[in-house]
Amino acid sequence: MTDFQYIGKEHSRPDGADKATGKAHYIHDLKRPGMLFGKIKFSSQAHAKIKNIDVSRAERLPGVRAVITAYDTPEIRLGFMRDNYALKKNKVRQYRDEIAAVAAIDPDIAAEAAELITVEYEPLPALFSIEEALAENAILIHEKDPQGRPRNSNVLTLKYFHQSGDLEQGRKQAHFMVDGVFSTPLIQQSCMGTAGCIAEFDGNNNLTMWAKTQIPFLAQRDFNRALSDIGLQGKNTRVIVPTLGGGFGSGLDTHCYEYIAILLAYRTGQPVKIVYTRDEEFAYLSPRQSSRTKISQGCNRDGKLTFRRIEVFQDNGAYTSWGATYPSVMMIPATSLYRVKNVSFQAKLIYTNNTYCQAMRGYGNPELNWALENNMDELAEQAGIDPLEFRLINCNQPHEITPMGLKVSSCGLKECLENVASNLDWKKKRSLGKRRGVGVASLMHVGGSGRIYRSDASGMILKLDDFGNVNVYHGGVEMGQGLHSVLSLGVAEALGVPPTKVFINPTDTGTCPWDVGTHASRGAFMACQTAILAAHKLRQKIFALAEETFPREIEKSLKKFRKKNPDYIPPDFDVATAAIRDRFELRDGFIFIKDAPSEPWLRLELGRFLRAIHFQSQGQMLSAESFYDPPNELPDFDKGFGNISATYAYGAQAAEVEVDLETGDINIIRMAAAHDVGKVLNPQTLKGQMYGALAQGIGYTLYEELKSEQGRIINTNFRDYKIPTIAEMNFPITLEFIETDDQFGPFGAKGVGEPGLVPTAPAIANAIYNAIGVRIRDLPITPEKILDALKKQRSMSQEPE
Amino acid sequence: MTDFQYIGKEHSRPDGADKATGKAHYIHDLKRPGMLFGKIKFSSQAHAKIKNIDVSRAERLPGVRAVITAYDTPEIRLGFMRDNYALKKNKVRQYRDEIAAVAAIDPDIAAEAAELITVEYEPLPALFSIEEALAENAILIHEKDPQGRPRNSNVLTLKYFHQSGDLEQGRKQAHFMVDGVFSTPLIQQSCMGTAGCIAEFDGNNNLTMWAKTQIPFLAQRDFNRALSDIGLQGKNTRVIVPTLGGGFGSGLDTHCYEYIAILLAYRTGQPVKIVYTRDEEFAYLSPRQSSRTKISQGCNRDGKLTFRRIEVFQDNGAYTSWGATYPSVMMIPATSLYRVKNVSFQAKLIYTNNTYCQAMRGYGNPELNWALENNMDELAEQAGIDPLEFRLINCNQPHEITPMGLKVSSCGLKECLENVASNLDWKKKRSLGKRRGVGVASLMHVGGSGRIYRSDASGMILKLDDFGNVNVYHGGVEMGQGLHSVLSLGVAEALGVPPTKVFINPTDTGTCPWDVGTHASRGAFMACQTAILAAHKLRQKIFALAEETFPREIEKSLKKFRKKNPDYIPPDFDVATAAIRDRFELRDGFIFIKDAPSEPWLRLELGRFLRAIHFQSQGQMLSAESFYDPPNELPDFDKGFGNISATYAYGAQAAEVEVDLETGDINIIRMAAAHDVGKVLNPQTLKGQMYGALAQGIGYTLYEELKSEQGRIINTNFRDYKIPTIAEMNFPITLEFIETDDQFGPFGAKGVGEPGLVPTAPAIANAIYNAIGVRIRDLPITPEKILDALKKQRSMSQEPE
Repeated sequence: MTDFQYIGKEHSRPDGADKATGKAHYIHDLKRPGMLFGKIKFSSQAHAKIKNIDVSRAERLPGVRAVITAYDTPEIRLGFMRDNYALKKNKVRQYRDEIAAVAAIDPDIAAEAAELITVEYEPLPALFSIEEALAENAILIHEKDPQGRPRNSNVLTLKYFHQSGDLEQGRKQAHFMVDGVFSTPLIQQSCMGTAGCIAEFDGNNNLTMWAKTQIPFLAQRDFNRALSDIGLQGKNTRVIVPTLGGGFGSGLDTHCYEYIAILLAYRTGQPVKIVYTRDEEFAYLSPRQSSRTKISQGCNRDGKLTFRRIEVFQDNGAYTSWGATYPSVMMIPATSLYRVKNVSFQAKLIYTNNTYCQAMRGYGNPELNWALENNMDELAEQAGIDPLEFRLINCNQPHEITPMGLKVSSCGLKECLENVASNLDWKKKRSLGKRRGVGVASLMHVGGSGRIYRSDASGMILKLDDFGNVNVYHGGVEMGQGLHSVLSLGVAEALGVPPTKVFINPTDTGTCPWDVGTHASRGAFMACQTAILAAHKLRQKIFALAEETFPREIEKSLKKFRKKNPDYIPPDFDVATAAIRDRFELRDGFIFIKDAPSEPWLRLELGRFLRAIHFQSQGQMLSAESFYDPPNELPDFDKGFGNISATYAYGAQAAEVEVDLETGDINIIRMAAAHDVGKVLNPQTLKGQMYGALAQGIGYTLYEELKSEQGRIINTNFRDYKIPTIAEMNFPITLEFIETDDQFGPFGAKGVGEPGLVPTAPAIANAIYNAIGVRIRDLPITPEKILDALKKQRSMSQEPE
Repeated sequence: MTDFQYIGKEHSRPDGADKATGKAHYIHDLKRPGMLFGKIKFSSQAHAKIKNIDVSRAERLPGVRAVITAYDTPEIRLGFMRDNYALKKNKVRQYRDEIAAVAAIDPDIAAEAAELITVEYEPLPALFSIEEALAENAILIHEKDPQGRPRNSNVLTLKYFHQSGDLEQGRKQAHFMVDGVFSTPLIQQSCMGTAGCIAEFDGNNNLTMWAKTQIPFLAQRDFNRALSDIGLQGKNTRVIVPTLGGGFGSGLDTHCYEYIAILLAYRTGQPVKIVYTRDEEFAYLSPRQSSRTKISQGCNRDGKLTFRRIEVFQDNGAYTSWGATYPSVMMIPATSLYRVKNVSFQAKLIYTNNTYCQAMRGYGNPELNWALENNMDELAEQAGIDPLEFRLINCNQPHEITPMGLKVSSCGLKECLENVASNLDWKKKRSLGKRRGVGVASLMHVGGSGRIYRSDASGMILKLDDFGNVNVYHGGVEMGQGLHSVLSLGVAEALGVPPTKVFINPTDTGTCPWDVGTHASRGAFMACQTAILAAHKLRQKIFALAEETFPREIEKSLKKFRKKNPDYIPPDFDVATAAIRDRFELRDGFIFIKDAPSEPWLRLELGRFLRAIHFQSQGQMLSAESFYDPPNELPDFDKGFGNISATYAYGAQAAEVEVDLETGDINIIRMAAAHDVGKVLNPQTLKGQMYGALAQGIGYTLYEELKSEQGRIINTNFRDYKIPTIAEMNFPITLEFIETDDQFGPFGAKGVGEPGLVPTAPAIANAIYNAIGVRIRDLPITPEKILDALKKQRSMSQEPE
């Protein structure tokens, strides 16, 4: 592996100090001159006709500058299927539907005004489960499809399907076979920074949006479309991303509140800020989809998988976000985790009157993995094979092409499995006996970006200044994951300057080159790819110019050196002859000739070189741009085929648990995680990201669930909705990185933003089964469910405890 | 002349609506989270030793976060000669010297705290005139030069000198000869937006400065040096320029208050804002230099100039700003306005205890021109030649090289003179008789940037998006003059898109390419030059890609068109064959083949083309950069030689005045101005700039003077310091532009930001002389001076009125 200067070494995050000292400016901190505060009036019904909206009392409240409804503003449609509306007219389809909004001179007045709005409804039958929504005579939540054609069911037209090999043949080849149904709940992304935006029109009716988004450029497109909707054809939006307090997928869509801010700003002619309170974030922002997965797998006597059949039902809620495309990612492990030829996968999405959902870290993979990796253990048990061994038998291999057409370049899954087994002392721990047990689960995920949009590209501009600093323009979003850390290291490494000389410009569609968004674990992968390309161009320019400038400057250096060291005899080295572009190197901010003797005057500080080429007749200053679209494909989702990512990340996690048979409490004794990351970029940020993901995975496994009562989310705070704190994470974790030095990865690295939470739940579930012989199939695994299961187990075995 | 699409036509300013509706954000409007307010304690002595500073009462005031003096902060030196200090130690040299500063949670507390600081002085003899400062035993204002060597006089080491031809020979050839001494006062730039800044350190001790500056990149360099001074070696500054309410040269230096804000921000760890009140702006910001010019010229019988001798004395005040380099510009008209072979020019700058000065629009040219153009009239009178005729006799010509080595490419001076004469009905008005008269004056100025720094360059980046918009990154500063208007037109014209699709990024050293600053009338010249270069690159890229993409997209267009028009028979034109890069054109946002028939489907909207090349396998998005250093030279000022500008602007102004012999009131009846602008870019903004300059010229001529009492400016408001209002400008002005289509100018245009105020004063003075036979030699020409002169005239002629 290459010997890197900065990559792979510990470096502080460039944004660390600001965040630690409170100097970072989140949307909550931003204030624009003349800014108003917006507040939304949400529906109190899950499904109803709107009979009347009375805004008169709100309008009369002093300090209110505007009150708007769908009845007095242009229609703005949004969403992946464009089935949602910024403000709702005629009918509400979920408890949180936006009915009206106010802008006022302070947030309290805005809130008071929103409460003064009264709405008269005519309730409609509401559908709160997939079953209800699929029932024969179920009421249609959307009467028409986005093209205006009448619909005849609550199933979305958006469908995902894969079939390869011969499933019947696979069944026949199977000596062992296990079916199962597994489900996952609605959960919240739980960003520490709640959602919010500021919308501001300039005098030419162009828009600036400060948005909590992960997709500034797709948001720009969406907002530009909204400008057309309100009659401002051809006008443009500049999207600026402030410091984000987490994204986790919640920033992959544009949101009603953003369009409402736009409408209010346009109405009032003043900037309008809308920021959600924590309660609003829980109740009115879209959580992660719930899911139900039917799985069936079989294997032959040797434990080799012969077929796999998976059917996913996804409760879409009332509208369709990008999160509805989860199955595009589910399809990856469904078709390609472990080697299995005969595969069938399909996913259906169903409208209900529940809250509509959106993406969250892992993007369907944790849901699918939950079913798959539980089922793997069940099948291994039937086949009488140790579950670790069973996974190794079916393990993916480098250079294979999977049934979905995924081209596996490198694959460290085997090493990951062996690593966690060894770290957990698998063999010994597997048979500890009652109440204690170990379990393991694997994952695969996109690791070389993931093409879900026509372009999967990112751009970069690098600009050098007179001081040897590099200004970096890149459209990727730092949302806390550490992107700017690897971005600065990547630029530093690729160019050959210290990371402290790298300055990352604010994320702004006006100044940054296009980027499809920070999702699909693509941030570090794309940042470093574009950095390598742009830095290469800069180095070529520098070395070409150095042919003339380097010898001239070095002559001055030598003169200066000899003045101070009169007895010095310089080595016999002809700088002018050696100054050929291919022989130059730039490292650590110094230009030198690779094979020159290491005399101190034979190195030229980059800033000095840049000033020398700038401050001469017809001087130059250097910048370079890159635009990188990875070698992957937008899959054909009707056929379920296509190499969606340039490379794939793998990993395994294993857990040792102890279960309290009386209380049902699950005590994690220790965990081991091993991830094929291609190459560690910055150990510090990578570990931070992985530990964070693991904690999120444990929340998903044991604690988190948004509770809905007739479509209304009722646990809208961190007291009633529990995420792991340091108290819950109080166990040893062995975290190791397998470096497979991927050929498609920048510096060999793969994207690994999401994988860390993918296999956590099944690993723990498998450990619980190993400990007490019960398998919980619906997340989260609560003590109540454990006790219920134990009760059932006892009644079935009729053996008293 | 080329047929332009947008250039030369009326276009609204892109910043117009924001400024008219109060949406533009000046430094006064900006607020940063956690921001403190700084206030400076200024000296109450013009020259004194500092014995003691007591800050204890200020420190105890609740709400005060820091009080600093030179005694507890690192030394920061600044200024063109580095003879100034952010905070003064040991000694003050001018009334306005900065002694201490406070940062507090609101501006009122800061002001109160500053007043609570008491300073004990030991007064020194103070020098308030050039004569006093040049006196044999004058006290030294600076005991040492910037290198620490002892000084022996108050004359600056900075000197300007030019000598060419043979002055004695020239004298001998002269049949007529006139000497004179002319002086100009201290005046204020009178920006509607007062000076101010915000300094903010991030957690890594890098600095962001929101600065009211015309030189963001030179300011960055200065601030980076200051960071080194305070122990933050290698740290970097990002300079952001908010909306400016005028610059007029006041932004060509960095200022003590900016370094004080930096010190306070570093001390407190919070952002610190310092904004001057109007009083402070008048009293504590540097005004335009006062000057005294000795001039002597001679001509032969034919009226041809045979020699010119000019000696300038400039009261530098206590410290040295960029304004001290005025003589570098004075040298241009001194050596090169009108044809004269034998020339001598020298300028001396003298330290006094007056307020130190800085640049203002015209940069020495109005001062020099005041002497020169008065003297021209006196010489014409002696020679018995009409002053207009006298000027035409000596008029500059295209393609000449002047004594200073200025290479005149185009020159419309003759046309300008003839134009104003015609518009003013010169011949008839010249002999109107008593109380009424006309006068004329010419000017020449740099018109193709002006090299006063090692690099005279500017850069540009153009980035295209999926909507056919262009983001422009350029370091030039819009300060109200209309730069962004010509910038957007220049980009639009050079690229071929409507100006409304051009979006100019905020001026920010982090995102904009380097630019030496907005001075020397270079803004429009450089913006358009860089635009032409960058746009050319973009067009080349577009046309190359169009070879493949255009036919494909046109095929779709044709299909669509034929669907709607089934009977349509397309013309016999083979798109694929014609799609060769050289045959493409981009105009008004559409790509087409130049010689294609004008069918509607044969034009491709740029946005659609850009999406087509973006949303394909290995897609691209286009951007291009340029860096332009004009073909001019940094003159050798010891020799007074060098072609400082790529081209030169010329112009003439003429005035008709009536003088009230009883009150001395001067009534301007009408004015005519004609300027050789090369090419009009945007008539609207150009006229605005010229009318504004003329008003400023009239203020200089008749009203403006900063009054100083023992070094203290006493008229610190617009009641006591009068600038022309609409009431004073209530006379007809004929303004015409001579288009010489300069070969070095972008679209043929020259820079003309400054010329408009240069000849105004002598034109009016010459008209007054023509009207009443008295010549005022020191500006402003007040009624008192007129009455005094009339009194002297009467006593000399001994003819009763």
